[in-house]
Amino acid sequence: MALLPNPKLLFLLFFLILSIFLACQCDEEEKNPYLFESHRFKCLLKSKHGKIRVLEKFTERSELLRGIDKYRIGVLELEPQSFMLPHHCDAEVILLIVRGRGTISIAEQDEKNSFNLEYGDVIRVSAGSTFYFINRDNKERVFAYGLVNTVNIPGQFQEYFSAGGENPESIYRAFSSDILETAFNTPRDRLERLFGQQKQGIVIKASEEQIRAISEHASRSTKQTKGETQGPFNLLKERPQFSSRFGQFIEASPERFEQLRDLDTAAAFMNINQGGMILPFYNTRSTRVAMVVEGTGRFEMACPHLGRQSQRQREGQGSRGGRRERDQEEQEEGNVHYQKVRGNLNVGDILVVPAGHPVTIIATGGSNLRIVGFGINAHNNRKNFLAGQQSIWKNVEREAKELSFNLPGREVEQILQKQDQSYFVAGPEHRQQHGERGEEGRRGEQQFLSSILDFVV
Amino acid sequence: MALLPNPKLLFLLFFLILSIFLACQCDEEEKNPYLFESHRFKCLLKSKHGKIRVLEKFTERSELLRGIDKYRIGVLELEPQSFMLPHHCDAEVILLIVRGRGTISIAEQDEKNSFNLEYGDVIRVSAGSTFYFINRDNKERVFAYGLVNTVNIPGQFQEYFSAGGENPESIYRAFSSDILETAFNTPRDRLERLFGQQKQGIVIKASEEQIRAISEHASRSTKQTKGETQGPFNLLKERPQFSSRFGQFIEASPERFEQLRDLDTAAAFMNINQGGMILPFYNTRSTRVAMVVEGTGRFEMACPHLGRQSQRQREGQGSRGGRRERDQEEQEEGNVHYQKVRGNLNVGDILVVPAGHPVTIIATGGSNLRIVGFGINAHNNRKNFLAGQQSIWKNVEREAKELSFNLPGREVEQILQKQDQSYFVAGPEHRQQHGERGEEGRRGEQQFLSSILDFVV
Amino acid sequence: MALLPNPKLLFLLFFLILSIFLACQCDEEEKNPYLFESHRFKCLLKSKHGKIRVLEKFTERSELLRGIDKYRIGVLELEPQSFMLPHHCDAEVILLIVRGRGTISIAEQDEKNSFNLEYGDVIRVSAGSTFYFINRDNKERVFAYGLVNTVNIPGQFQEYFSAGGENPESIYRAFSSDILETAFNTPRDRLERLFGQQKQGIVIKASEEQIRAISEHASRSTKQTKGETQGPFNLLKERPQFSSRFGQFIEASPERFEQLRDLDTAAAFMNINQGGMILPFYNTRSTRVAMVVEGTGRFEMACPHLGRQSQRQREGQGSRGGRRERDQEEQEEGNVHYQKVRGNLNVGDILVVPAGHPVTIIATGGSNLRIVGFGINAHNNRKNFLAGQQSIWKNVEREAKELSFNLPGREVEQILQKQDQSYFVAGPEHRQQHGERGEEGRRGEQQFLSSILDFVV
Repeated sequence: MALLPNPKLLFLLFFLILSIFLACQCDEEEKNPYLFESHRFKCLLKSKHGKIRVLEKFTERSELLRGIDKYRIGVLELEPQSFMLPHHCDAEVILLIVRGRGTISIAEQDEKNSFNLEYGDVIRVSAGSTFYFINRDNKERVFAYGLVNTVNIPGQFQEYFSAGGENPESIYRAFSSDILETAFNTPRDRLERLFGQQKQGIVIKASEEQIRAISEHASRSTKQTKGETQGPFNLLKERPQFSSRFGQFIEASPERFEQLRDLDTAAAFMNINQGGMILPFYNTRSTRVAMVVEGTGRFEMACPHLGRQSQRQREGQGSRGGRRERDQEEQEEGNVHYQKVRGNLNVGDILVVPAGHPVTIIATGGSNLRIVGFGINAHNNRKNFLAGQQSIWKNVEREAKELSFNLPGREVEQILQKQDQSYFVAGPEHRQQHGERGEEGRRGEQQFLSSILDFVV
Repeated sequence: MALLPNPKLLFLLFFLILSIFLACQCDEEEKNPYLFESHRFKCLLKSKHGKIRVLEKFTERSELLRGIDKYRIGVLELEPQSFMLPHHCDAEVILLIVRGRGTISIAEQDEKNSFNLEYGDVIRVSAGSTFYFINRDNKERVFAYGLVNTVNIPGQFQEYFSAGGENPESIYRAFSSDILETAFNTPRDRLERLFGQQKQGIVIKASEEQIRAISEHASRSTKQTKGETQGPFNLLKERPQFSSRFGQFIEASPERFEQLRDLDTAAAFMNINQGGMILPFYNTRSTRVAMVVEGTGRFEMACPHLGRQSQRQREGQGSRGGRRERDQEEQEEGNVHYQKVRGNLNVGDILVVPAGHPVTIIATGGSNLRIVGFGINAHNNRKNFLAGQQSIWKNVEREAKELSFNLPGREVEQILQKQDQSYFVAGPEHRQQHGERGEEGRRGEQQFLSSILDFVV
Repeated sequence: MALLPNPKLLFLLFFLILSIFLACQCDEEEKNPYLFESHRFKCLLKSKHGKIRVLEKFTERSELLRGIDKYRIGVLELEPQSFMLPHHCDAEVILLIVRGRGTISIAEQDEKNSFNLEYGDVIRVSAGSTFYFINRDNKERVFAYGLVNTVNIPGQFQEYFSAGGENPESIYRAFSSDILETAFNTPRDRLERLFGQQKQGIVIKASEEQIRAISEHASRSTKQTKGETQGPFNLLKERPQFSSRFGQFIEASPERFEQLRDLDTAAAFMNINQGGMILPFYNTRSTRVAMVVEGTGRFEMACPHLGRQSQRQREGQGSRGGRRERDQEEQEEGNVHYQKVRGNLNVGDILVVPAGHPVTIIATGGSNLRIVGFGINAHNNRKNFLAGQQSIWKNVEREAKELSFNLPGREVEQILQKQDQSYFVAGPEHRQQHGERGEEGRRGEQQFLSSILDFVV
């Protein structure tokens, strides 16, 4: 036993290995599994002039997110005057342009449609559609977020590059020579040339003439095309669902937009003016995945799932909270606990707000806070506000309020009605600086329109 | 090695630990995973005047139930003259009142609807709707079963109490003071008062005036409201789907009831008269979750899943039946085996009847047996009877019967037609006592109507 | 420590056991998880005159197939002049007759429908319908493939034999005697006789008179029946979706066929003439499960999932590819890799072609290659071709082609247009033998029609 001098140590080592193995099987419940900072995007495919990044699988972060496990979030990024090679994806994708100007071309068997895209545009790319993308601009990058609704394997998707050669590898290269020769009715050497020249990656530089030729027939038509593809719509041109001096919220719901309907997904945009805050609210049914595109902010959310875990920790039961079987355990006397989840929001961060969770967002820093987002399970979703004139308390009887808070009904109503605004208000820091809000009339809305035009990141 | 005197023992201990670990990974297939006695409800939230209990997750009981894993069964229970605080739930809920009289108020942003509820009422509470509930009666408790169709995390749901304070903890308390001050435009000390007074729990006592004020505007309208909420309907007022002297079956199907349609769920009621039995039948597509609300009974069910496991046990292959991969193993010569599953039914018990499983239920004891239930995957479900005039054999050719049972066709038909009733018959014990059934005409149906009025648990 | 002479060896043994345990937890990613040779069917139930076989669960083969995990593939096989006993199944089934002539009878509570079936017929048997099946022919066997859409437990289904006795065991035998006596109003001894005579298994021999009596009222009507059952339709009588001299493709889509619609499934038939090849293509959204019914062939498919694993292997990271969490890992510079998946196709083999995967099939051997199949998630699926006149490149701009392949646009277009046919062409071997294709006019289509009539396996 020269190699193993001390069996006791080895036994301890064994126990250690086994424990580590068991611990790795447990989900690590974090204190804040809902905020994904921008660095949590992994690079899926990249090249000199552009890349496709993808957020980690939601369940890799936390088992609490397994309800949306079949969705992924991706980002397309193209340098100025560049061309993303034609490819298809085995997932339904909803693209949302958050910066720049591009043109997308979707090639179906019977027709090809090209659409010019700009900030705020939403376009659906159906699973399996071969498409390519150019950045028409010669100064600005194009950024587009994508909600990926996986079709083949839940939570996974793949890109299939029909174009390409060596880099990106073209799908044609997977086939044997005799098959390719037969398919193209072309000798092998010419095919080796065809599929061997492209080495620059998935996004390459294009000349002005090439870009012009590809984008000149592009339209913005939302008319039903012959095939399956539908044109884009611009989120920012829709009327806000609700707004006030301090912010606006716009949503494209599956009820109103056919290209979102079969996916039961919504696309949304929220602007909170500098120093503003959205009153605490919750989504009745939809889980939201929000991407910060401008400004900085902070959020707070109330989470009973994390509340339960912290209860168990305080009671000394360890933190195996991820085990599903433990999640609905016996409670003490009405003792549900809501954990405060908080964090900062910067450009590129992703915040997941599960259905039912009360949340509030504040614009800090020196500019507006702009957030775009996707709503999953969006059909019939409503935002219920917990404060302000338009809130869930609006129609509740005085007696019910009395019983709710164990205070005289009049006193409760006084407090609940003190906030005479709705939806968006001046935030905590803003209130401190400016005291009572002055009369600013419609300046807020005008600010909004001009902000859209002056959009600068 | 003073601490480890015997390495041999330690090796055995290691194997033991490893085996226990492996065994825990296996699902424990029970002999009767379909019956949930009333004590299997866990208390989710409780207070002096009421509670919310929830049945364990179906897959905690058996992997055979993983097809309905995203559903949970809950029970609301309120003492006389009590008020359940306003809260919302991140799941679609169908409530079925099985005792008492209550009033539910569902508060949406634009409107609030109140409905008086009584025994047999079914009401849909959409995910995220803030609602509160009162027991108007000053003597009787209110009991309501709920089918919970989880939205966020499959098989889990959470309650979010907007009302409350210390107990139940209000969701407002999860937010920082500055945010609450801003949201309510109210100083901190007043808010601490507002969210600090309620300590009595999720259900509290209410005075007669408070109850009257809350319920006086309640309606029973099933008219489409402006918002999303729809009124209740009463199951017991529907015409039976089928009935006979010894029992009645009523079902509200998703095809006919809009508030059940998107959930593909049915609500059902079965009454088996004292001493009666429902002829063996099976549901073609729907899995049923049945709750015993009155009387006692017994059931028998035929289960091929358990049959397979008992086969393997008999063949000495151990009982790793829960492993999904093993569930469809090679069979001997046409040797599928159906295990008899039997049990007693008492008030508060839950019986799960999976789709396709033949089952029969008998009312034992001295009163009718009354069962309410939810049907999952209910669209187009039919009950196919295995005996009686209305049975699957009704239209089958004599030759097919002959081949089926390897007996002369006439002999088979004689046996199959001997039972001249359908659906519900006198049960085994009743037959023994009363011999041939006497002519009792329509007494059965009249008994049913009066039983509804005299309902006493 | 007489039994354990060498602790060192035992430690190594321990590590070995632990490693084996860990390795078994990993999914074994094969080199070709998409091809299921005919021997991979397990016998579910069998008897002297017929059997039901079922393909292993898709996830038993590979985690890559978990997207279709709730589906199973079954095969019914009946000897001439035989009768499959009445039973029901807890799954939605789509049957496709690939050989012989049979009659199916579907017994619902209110009516019974019988349909004569022949090669190419597709019939939907709804979950829970009691049905029986006869082989009318006195020479040929009947073969029918079934796509089983499991309802109760994902990926599992059970057969419930109402007919039967000892073998197959009848579901009635699971009930106690007193219940059966009550249900049938018949003494115990007569019931023991009824349920004790059948010992021949699930498929038994039938006389000509019995067969005639059962099938004489059968129709082929596709008219909506009173109940839920709809009649069959014949795939081979539909117009091809596309065709050429070297092959035809026919599809019954859920959009056009009501009995397929709620299952979002398609039924399809492909004929590739002797020596022919279908040009490389991919399905945009649907995963196809294809069954070879005549001839021999070979296929090639491009798979990025397997490509990723082989990349990791080459980089020395081991082959834990099955772990879902690892599947979307960081990529090098645009370095997606498509693994060539190839194999031979013989009668009885099953090929799974996931959505998005480019694939081609060649008819080798001395006859046509005929393949039937089911399409899962078929709604709005399209086949996009990668070569030929009708291909995804058809409408793409020259400049985009130029950028795609980094070659002069004219040169790319020359190559892409060299193949002047579409869909089906002469295969590699055929080209070698016959050089340039001669003018053969419509002989191809006529060959197809006569082949249907002369179908011989």
